[in-house]
Amino acid sequence: MSLIVKKFGGSSVATPEKIMAVAKRVLAEKAADDKVVVVVSAMGDTTDELIALAKGVSDNPYGNAREMDRLLSTGEQVTIALLAMAFNKLGQQAISFTGLQAGFKASTAHTKGKILNINPKRVLTELEKGKIVVVAGFQGINADGDVVTLGRGGSDTSAVALAGALKADACEIFTDVDGIYSADPRIVKNAKKMKEITYNEMLELARLGAGVMQPRSVEMGKRYGIPIHVRSTFTETTGTFIREEYTVEEKEFIIRGVTHDDNVTKIAILGVPDQPGIAYKIFSALAKANIDVDMIVQSIRNSDQNVIDMVFTVTKTDLHQVKAIIDDIGKEMETLGVIVDDNVAKVSAVGAGMLGNPGIAANMFGALAKAGINIEVISTSEISISCLIQADKVTEAVNAIHQCFFKD
Amino acid sequence: MSLIVKKFGGSSVATPEKIMAVAKRVLAEKAADDKVVVVVSAMGDTTDELIALAKGVSDNPYGNAREMDRLLSTGEQVTIALLAMAFNKLGQQAISFTGLQAGFKASTAHTKGKILNINPKRVLTELEKGKIVVVAGFQGINADGDVVTLGRGGSDTSAVALAGALKADACEIFTDVDGIYSADPRIVKNAKKMKEITYNEMLELARLGAGVMQPRSVEMGKRYGIPIHVRSTFTETTGTFIREEYTVEEKEFIIRGVTHDDNVTKIAILGVPDQPGIAYKIFSALAKANIDVDMIVQSIRNSDQNVIDMVFTVTKTDLHQVKAIIDDIGKEMETLGVIVDDNVAKVSAVGAGMLGNPGIAANMFGALAKAGINIEVISTSEISISCLIQADKVTEAVNAIHQCFFKD
Repeated sequence: MSLIVKKFGGSSVATPEKIMAVAKRVLAEKAADDKVVVVVSAMGDTTDELIALAKGVSDNPYGNAREMDRLLSTGEQVTIALLAMAFNKLGQQAISFTGLQAGFKASTAHTKGKILNINPKRVLTELEKGKIVVVAGFQGINADGDVVTLGRGGSDTSAVALAGALKADACEIFTDVDGIYSADPRIVKNAKKMKEITYNEMLELARLGAGVMQPRSVEMGKRYGIPIHVRSTFTETTGTFIREEYTVEEKEFIIRGVTHDDNVTKIAILGVPDQPGIAYKIFSALAKANIDVDMIVQSIRNSDQNVIDMVFTVTKTDLHQVKAIIDDIGKEMETLGVIVDDNVAKVSAVGAGMLGNPGIAANMFGALAKAGINIEVISTSEISISCLIQADKVTEAVNAIHQCFFKD
Repeated sequence: MSLIVKKFGGSSVATPEKIMAVAKRVLAEKAADDKVVVVVSAMGDTTDELIALAKGVSDNPYGNAREMDRLLSTGEQVTIALLAMAFNKLGQQAISFTGLQAGFKASTAHTKGKILNINPKRVLTELEKGKIVVVAGFQGINADGDVVTLGRGGSDTSAVALAGALKADACEIFTDVDGIYSADPRIVKNAKKMKEITYNEMLELARLGAGVMQPRSVEMGKRYGIPIHVRSTFTETTGTFIREEYTVEEKEFIIRGVTHDDNVTKIAILGVPDQPGIAYKIFSALAKANIDVDMIVQSIRNSDQNVIDMVFTVTKTDLHQVKAIIDDIGKEMETLGVIVDDNVAKVSAVGAGMLGNPGIAANMFGALAKAGINIEVISTSEISISCLIQADKVTEAVNAIHQCFFKD
C-alpha cells in the first residue's frame, strides 16, 4: 500500500477525451490497495478564455484581484468535476474537492497567494473509504473566506504541499517532458536525462533558468521531504526523481546540469567615487524598489584616480525601473556615466559535487575560452558557477560547457 | 433609502457587453443611498456547454449528482466575478459572493436542493460599506459543505429568499417579458398586462400553466411578505407587482388570468366496482409512485350495474409509469378496461374575486359552449376553475374565456 499524489497540468486535461485518458492511466498504475489523490489544473486554454471574458468588462482585470481569483478558480472546479465523473464511469469511486474543501489555507495576497497550511481531513476520510480524491490545484482559501489563486506553477505547489500534508510516499508531476535533463534538449543534442537530482541542485537549476519546475514546488518537496517524480503524461517511462539525497552513489556527478538565462541585462556605473557605503547606497535603493540584483562586480577603474566601476545584472523586465533609479544616483554621485547592455545572457553549471573540486571553475572557463567566448562577469554559489556572455553565443557556450562535463 | 434585490437571468448576462449593460442599468436606477444586491444566473448557454462537457466523460452525468452540481455551479461564479468587475469599471464599489459566502444553506438533495435558511451576514456587512453585492443564484451549501443547485427557476428563488432574509423593500425579477398578462400574449391578442396580482393568484396561475414565474419563488415571496416586481430587462417600463393584497381597490378583478396547460393526459378506468376504498386503492398506488394526479371525476356508469367510471388526469411525462400501475390494479379489480387520451388540454380561469361570485363558473361554461367546445372534465379550487377540453381547441377556448371576462 502506498499513498501517491499525482498532478496533471492543463494540456493533459484539455478535452473530455484527455480527461478520460488521464483517469484510465491513473487506474492502470494503481495497485488495488493504493491510496491515490489527483491534483489537476484548468482545462487547456480555459484560463486564457476567462481572462478574455474579464477584459470584456474591464481594461485592467487584475486591478480587481479578488474577483479575478474568483473567475480563474472556476477553471479547476470544472476539471475536478469531470475527472471525478470519468473515474465513476470507469467503475472507480471518486470524489472532487475544491482547495477550500481539501483544506488549503492561503495568504490573502490575491492572484499570488502562498500556501500557509493544509488540513486535509476530508481528503483522508474519503481515501479511507477507498475513493480516489480529485483536488483542484492552484487555489486556497484566505482568512476572509475568499478563494485565492497561487500564481505561476501553482498547481505543482498544491500537489507537493498536499503530498506533504498527507505524508504521501511520493508526488508525481506529469508534464510534457519526460524528466529533468542535464541541459535544454532543444539546444544540446546529447543532453542526458537524470535518474535523480537533489532538491538543492534542482532549486539552483530552476533559479538559473531551467524551466521544468517552479522553485516554490521544489522548496515544498524539500520542506516536507516528499520525493518528486517528474515524468511524461504521454509515455510510461520513468522520469526524474527530485529528493534529498542520491539513492545510488554516483561519484562522477560533479556537475548535474548546464542552464542558460536570456532575461538578463548588464548595467555598468562608471567612475563611482571609491568610498565606503557607495555599494550600500546603490543596492539599497534598488532593494527598496523590490528589484532583484544578480551578479555584482566592483572593479578598480585605474590606479591614479580614486574611482571604481560598479557592474551588476538585473532582469530585462526590471530594466526600465532600474534606469530611472540609477540615473538619479548617478547625478547625485557625479559618476562618469552608465552603460546598459541587454545583449547578454547567463550560462551556468550546477552541481553539489563542485564543492570539493576546485578545478571545476577553471574547466568551465577553459571550455568557454576554447570556444572563443569572452566572459564579461563571473559569479559563484556553493553549488553553481555562472558566466555572463554575449547573448548570441548562448547555444555555443551551453554546448561547450556540457561537452566538457558530460563526456559521451 | 431602500434595500432592493435585483435578479437577472442568463439571457440578460449572456456576454461581457450585456453584463456591462446590466451594471449600467442597475446604477441608473440606484438612488445615492440605496442598498442594492444583484443576483445572477450563468451566462447564456453556459449551462448547456457544461452539460455537453459532462456528456463527454459520462453517458449519465446526472447519475453523479454531486459532481454535476460542482460543475454547474461554476457558471454563476463566472458571472458574479465579471459583474463585480463591471461595477468597479463604472466607479461603483462591488463585491461578489457565492451561495456559500452569501449564507445559503440548502438541503442535501443534489441538483434539486431546497433553501433551508439564509444567514446573509457578509452581505449586510458589505452593503453597510456602500458596496453593491453580487450574489450567485441557483446555489447553496448543504450539511456536508458541498455545493447544491436549486433546480428549475432556482435563481428566482435565490433572489426572493435573499430579499426575505435581508428584509428588503422589494425584489425585482428582470426577464424577457415586461410583466404578468391576463393570458399568454402569443395566444390572446388583447391580453392585458396586470399592474399587480396577489401571491395566491400568481401561485394558482403558475400551477395551472403560466410560465413566467416558478411557484417556489412566489411561495418564498408569500412566506417573507416580499413584493416581487416582474419586469423587462430590455425596457424601462414598470412591470407587474406580486404582493399579498391589492394596493388599489379593483372591484372588476373577478378573474385575473386565463391559462392553459398542454402537458395533460386523461385516464379513464371503466367499470370499477363501486365499493368503499376503491378510490383509495387507486390513488394511494399512484401517490406511492410519486405521481401527481390532478382532476378527478367519479361517475355512475349505469344504474343497474354496481360499477363506476373513474376519470383523472396526470402529466404526459408520467404517463408511461401510470399505465403500468393502472394495468396491475385493473387486473386485480376486474375492471372493464382503461382508456388513455393524451389529446387533451386544460384551460383555467383564476381570480380571488370568484369566491363571492357564484356566476363565474356558469359564464365560463357558457363561453366554451358558445364556441362549440365540449368540456370533458371540470375541477375547481377556491380561486380557479379548470376545464379539460380537446387539445386542438386550446387557442379558441382561451380566447373565448378571456373575451368573456375581459371586455375591451
